Amino acid sequence: MLTYIYIIAITAEAMSGALAAGRRNMDMFGVALIAFITALGGGTVRDLLLGNFPVGWTQHPPYIYLTIGAGLFTMLVARFMHHLHKVFLVLDAMGLIAFTVIGCNVALQLEYSTPVVIMAGMITGIFGGILRDILCQRVPVVLRHELYASVSMLVAMLYLLMEKLGINHDINLLAAFSFGLALRLAAIRWSWSLPVFSYQPGRWE
Amino acid sequence: MLTYIYIIAITAEAMSGALAAGRRNMDMFGVALIAFITALGGGTVRDLLLGNFPVGWTQHPPYIYLTIGAGLFTMLVARFMHHLHKVFLVLDAMGLIAFTVIGCNVALQLEYSTPVVIMAGMITGIFGGILRDILCQRVPVVLRHELYASVSMLVAMLYLLMEKLGINHDINLLAAFSFGLALRLAAIRWSWSLPVFSYQPGRWE
Amino acid sequence: MLTYIYIIAITAEAMSGALAAGRRNMDMFGVALIAFITALGGGTVRDLLLGNFPVGWTQHPPYIYLTIGAGLFTMLVARFMHHLHKVFLVLDAMGLIAFTVIGCNVALQLEYSTPVVIMAGMITGIFGGILRDILCQRVPVVLRHELYASVSMLVAMLYLLMEKLGINHDINLLAAFSFGLALRLAAIRWSWSLPVFSYQPGRWE
Repeated sequence: MLTYIYIIAITAEAMSGALAAGRRNMDMFGVALIAFITALGGGTVRDLLLGNFPVGWTQHPPYIYLTIGAGLFTMLVARFMHHLHKVFLVLDAMGLIAFTVIGCNVALQLEYSTPVVIMAGMITGIFGGILRDILCQRVPVVLRHELYASVSMLVAMLYLLMEKLGINHDINLLAAFSFGLALRLAAIRWSWSLPVFSYQPGRWE
Repeated sequence: MLTYIYIIAITAEAMSGALAAGRRNMDMFGVALIAFITALGGGTVRDLLLGNFPVGWTQHPPYIYLTIGAGLFTMLVARFMHHLHKVFLVLDAMGLIAFTVIGCNVALQLEYSTPVVIMAGMITGIFGGILRDILCQRVPVVLRHELYASVSMLVAMLYLLMEKLGINHDINLLAAFSFGLALRLAAIRWSWSLPVFSYQPGRWE
Repeated sequence: MLTYIYIIAITAEAMSGALAAGRRNMDMFGVALIAFITALGGGTVRDLLLGNFPVGWTQHPPYIYLTIGAGLFTMLVARFMHHLHKVFLVLDAMGLIAFTVIGCNVALQLEYSTPVVIMAGMITGIFGGILRDILCQRVPVVLRHELYASVSMLVAMLYLLMEKLGINHDINLLAAFSFGLALRLAAIRWSWSLPVFSYQPGRWE
């Protein structure tokens, strides 16, 4: 179940990477690379930070092909994508939650402590997008707009709490997805966002 | 002793990260993340490069809370921070030196060769700031302004030399801090900087 | 043989890094660091992703000195470098191919699967330039201009194919270099490039 959602998730993330590359007029190769990094970069950063070798995608070549293929496919269909706007946002939200839960599971298996498990979930969820934005020269969008990283954090916390309470794993997954999806879509719908910190630079720094 | 200075150091670095995030109008979450990365990113990059797993902060959750807390606290007190300008510069300089010495020690314990030990010290000292500037979309300030990375390099060299000469560890630490702090503050006071390389791009590249 | 070419390659890459740093008015230290990262960053990223510790340059201090020295030397001779334009492009192309072949060999020895071996070659070939461009605040040039990353990919594929066919290693190397160099130089000469993806951002993302 989680595997299917994961496959949908990396496809959606790869497509968002391809669109960002397109805004920077990258060539086909750049599009493929950014798609790959957006989709699999979060898990890669998590594996490096946790010392979890070999890194995930090196053991699953189909994920490499899938993300690169999705990136190149996006070049063909980009002009129609605004029609798919709402579908895309739902897929992206599902991806965020799936990445978060998977990241938590990896850290749990390596027996890291609770705060590290939560951070592993969040890193898996948001770092693909952060790497995408660094490579495409923009301030990471996940740190500025509607609730996104916070959804990842709350989903990770809820998931961990339910695991510790010994609740059935399937019910736990269902709860994490229901809660996360509802929160993320509500945040988009009503533009919920965190307080913004605007600092005017002084002379001294 | 070094632990206390380290705690002051990561707090000061976290605050500098938060201010940089504030200039980019990031939300609370972005502020917390940039604070965390600025404070603990240098040590993380060092641990990854040296293959030193588990990465430091994953074993010390209080450092996670401290840096995130310092970042969020900065949002509240930012308007008063220019009054603390000079204190802040001293704390930042102490942090640079503490990070450098700690980075050298980690590489020494892993029995890397002298040039790698020096680089490990410098990476710990400056990479948090470099990651902060990449995420906040500016050319890394440590590579452009008054002596900063060079202070880290000279402190690392002095520290190593004295260690090899078998000088008492506490005296060595005191010397590294005195020398480093004096050099860094003098560099700020009299705007000492390294020669700048300005290259006008030709047609060909 | 490959070692000599590798030494030429990291020197050429270090110089390209120094020029990029010069465009951003970095100080001597920044020039040295960007030179080092441009030359050795691709191999470092590969080693981290493959879990290949200790990372290459930590075992070969002369490479550290060479790349930093080449970076600083570039500051002195930059004004004459446009005369060396064509030599430089050839050295850079040789570097790309040497990096690619070396990256493939590392992944082969660690017994990764074929697609990962090809990616290891490409990552070694292009990531130094990508890190350089991130630190110098520009959209990675290898993802936008004439065939570059694609040359790395095709060289990696050719090299692997010939290895699997059991062809003599020296002949294989010679073929990889002849093919790669011819393709890269032809791409520069006639401005061969991949299709570009230009995406006009809609309201919705």
